[in-house]
Amino acid sequence: MNKKLLLLPGDGIGPEIITEVRKLISWINDHTDLTIETEEDYFGGAAIDAYGVPLRDETLAAARKSDAILMGAVGGPKWDNVAYDIRPEAGLLKIRKQLDLFANLRPAIVFDALIDASSLKPEIVKGLDILIVRELTGGVYFGEPRGIEDLGDGERRGVNTQVYTTSEIRRVGKVAFEIARKRQGKVTSCEKANVMESGKLWREEITRLHAESYSDVTLEHMYADNAAMQLCRRPSQFDVIVTDNLFGDILSDEAAMLTGSLGMLPSAALGAPDSPGLYEPVHGSAPDIAGQGIANPLATILSFAMLLKYSFNSVALGEQIEAAVQAVLAQGLRTADIMTEGCQKVTTVEMGDAVIKELAA
Amino acid sequence: MNKKLLLLPGDGIGPEIITEVRKLISWINDHTDLTIETEEDYFGGAAIDAYGVPLRDETLAAARKSDAILMGAVGGPKWDNVAYDIRPEAGLLKIRKQLDLFANLRPAIVFDALIDASSLKPEIVKGLDILIVRELTGGVYFGEPRGIEDLGDGERRGVNTQVYTTSEIRRVGKVAFEIARKRQGKVTSCEKANVMESGKLWREEITRLHAESYSDVTLEHMYADNAAMQLCRRPSQFDVIVTDNLFGDILSDEAAMLTGSLGMLPSAALGAPDSPGLYEPVHGSAPDIAGQGIANPLATILSFAMLLKYSFNSVALGEQIEAAVQAVLAQGLRTADIMTEGCQKVTTVEMGDAVIKELAA
Ligand SMILES: CC(C)[C@H](C(=O)O)[C@@H](O)C(=O)O
Ligand SMILES: CC(C)[C@H](C(=O)O)[C@@H](O)C(=O)O
Repeated sequence: MNKKLLLLPGDGIGPEIITEVRKLISWINDHTDLTIETEEDYFGGAAIDAYGVPLRDETLAAARKSDAILMGAVGGPKWDNVAYDIRPEAGLLKIRKQLDLFANLRPAIVFDALIDASSLKPEIVKGLDILIVRELTGGVYFGEPRGIEDLGDGERRGVNTQVYTTSEIRRVGKVAFEIARKRQGKVTSCEKANVMESGKLWREEITRLHAESYSDVTLEHMYADNAAMQLCRRPSQFDVIVTDNLFGDILSDEAAMLTGSLGMLPSAALGAPDSPGLYEPVHGSAPDIAGQGIANPLATILSFAMLLKYSFNSVALGEQIEAAVQAVLAQGLRTADIMTEGCQKVTTVEMGDAVIKELAA
Repeated sequence: MNKKLLLLPGDGIGPEIITEVRKLISWINDHTDLTIETEEDYFGGAAIDAYGVPLRDETLAAARKSDAILMGAVGGPKWDNVAYDIRPEAGLLKIRKQLDLFANLRPAIVFDALIDASSLKPEIVKGLDILIVRELTGGVYFGEPRGIEDLGDGERRGVNTQVYTTSEIRRVGKVAFEIARKRQGKVTSCEKANVMESGKLWREEITRLHAESYSDVTLEHMYADNAAMQLCRRPSQFDVIVTDNLFGDILSDEAAMLTGSLGMLPSAALGAPDSPGLYEPVHGSAPDIAGQGIANPLATILSFAMLLKYSFNSVALGEQIEAAVQAVLAQGLRTADIMTEGCQKVTTVEMGDAVIKELAA
């Protein structure tokens, strides 16, 4: 089987952690039926520096021709002052929107070996495994009208538009229900239907979709503010959370932080079945440690494992990589960000090598 | 000194917990220079049942003539299916907007005696004292256009508008900076300036206000998703957080839950200096335990203490009540919601009596 993969290392620690995935790809090409052809391009800040824009049309064209995209990390203080619409983030929003990657899958998993890294008590987070399905191409991120208007006399007015349609809600709802069926069978849908009509529509459409096609799944509705509370209070009550772009941004980051293992968490952004998925670690570009060879490559390696499962139809291989990651953690190997007493501190490269060694074992 | 107080007990446990404040008022009227005249009315679900609307014009008129308003709790499943704009929440939004209560003060305090109630490790939350200043009369809660449009063929479109002006941002920013001066001198302003122009305006205006008048206060900007993370990771980094209506709704609930003491947290909603402030506990109407006499009155008693300080200019008296609450906790008295082994379980009435006894001591 031949698959095309576009690598977008991006900024900060991005290039270093993508290097570790390149080693995995070589290993796969040498040892399995799967052959992965890679292409690579600048993205984000690196692309601004090279070409003046965070995402070139050529990159987008290459993305469309790929079976999947793996991204390292995007942005950094270096580009904080460039104009609003050519910032690294603008590239991220553009690629999501252009490829119609409407479903962002954000797992929040507590790794047994890392449970002490959580700020929460171990008995509250032990075994935690939540999946947040965040709508990624709609809502206030993209709604029109938007902008800043000058009203004169020093007064300005900033506007954004939160908007959702029936079909936007249904398609991301379907993703959540389908995944819940393969998990614990529970979906919690979050909005502010008590104060926002777009949230009311969200609630009604999710309710209808559930009644039509997914009544075997347990559906619960929760206001987003309450969800932010419940994630802190008793996170184990959640299986799959489905929510909009903005609430999803906040709740998925909160959920990720519950685990204490931000450096460990992968993510996927999926569109229509025949379009390429985009995978990236949840953590940022960490410019403060870039170039030192100490970044944790595991979130990117786990993002690549998700990619194998969801986009390359290589579920067994993806699970093999996940098991290898668990194994190196169990051996006590730790990059600096997850280091604790009694463990062995390793570099980015050593961690990548350890995963390969486990795979080969 | 004579002050006018409007009591709005509201729904669920609201009437029971307001009863305990009435005892405090009698005590104050009997033992201090302050004379509090009370008026009382239905609000929320109770007002829907009595008058068909959650907030009557008469109630609003009484509110305007008062020096402050104390609310119990609002809403409950009983009114979940009434029409959108006459729901109990609609009354809450209307009173905030009509009285122009633009600054919502939401303290998140960890009480030493209750530290084990937090889901977070004690070393992370010990001594926690954050104040969230949430903008309360603008943003997506009130922006126009809004509504649900029928597009035909089963397709609908839900719209809300996020909007902020320079003056809306500045006035709530001022409240935050002024309060920070009396606290640790740090303000963290939260938005999504990286994806929303309204957030970009927010950041610019807060930055300008700071440079103009508050450069003695430390100002930090943080994206709302990162704030949701940092609240979980290292909440003690925050002193005052200032943010918009929607982010404030979510972040203040998350912060409240960090403390593990939702039943203990007060709140204030303030407008222009000469307009009445509105005070209410953070917790809801808890219909499941209403009428059993077991609800925790302390959040409402602490809301009343805030009221004395902010609206009746009786700072010493407010502090006396806060000290009395600390004292009854130190004695080991607990309502069911905060009960732990080795403590003494008391009813709503017993808790109220214990606070009075401390005051009188
Ligand atoms: C960088 C930013 C535009 C982005 C977002 O808000 O979506 C990020 O927070 C994320 O969650 O991927
Ligand atoms: C009940 C609801 C309208 C309200 C809000 O969203 O503002 C509540 O969550 C709050 O924070 O007071």
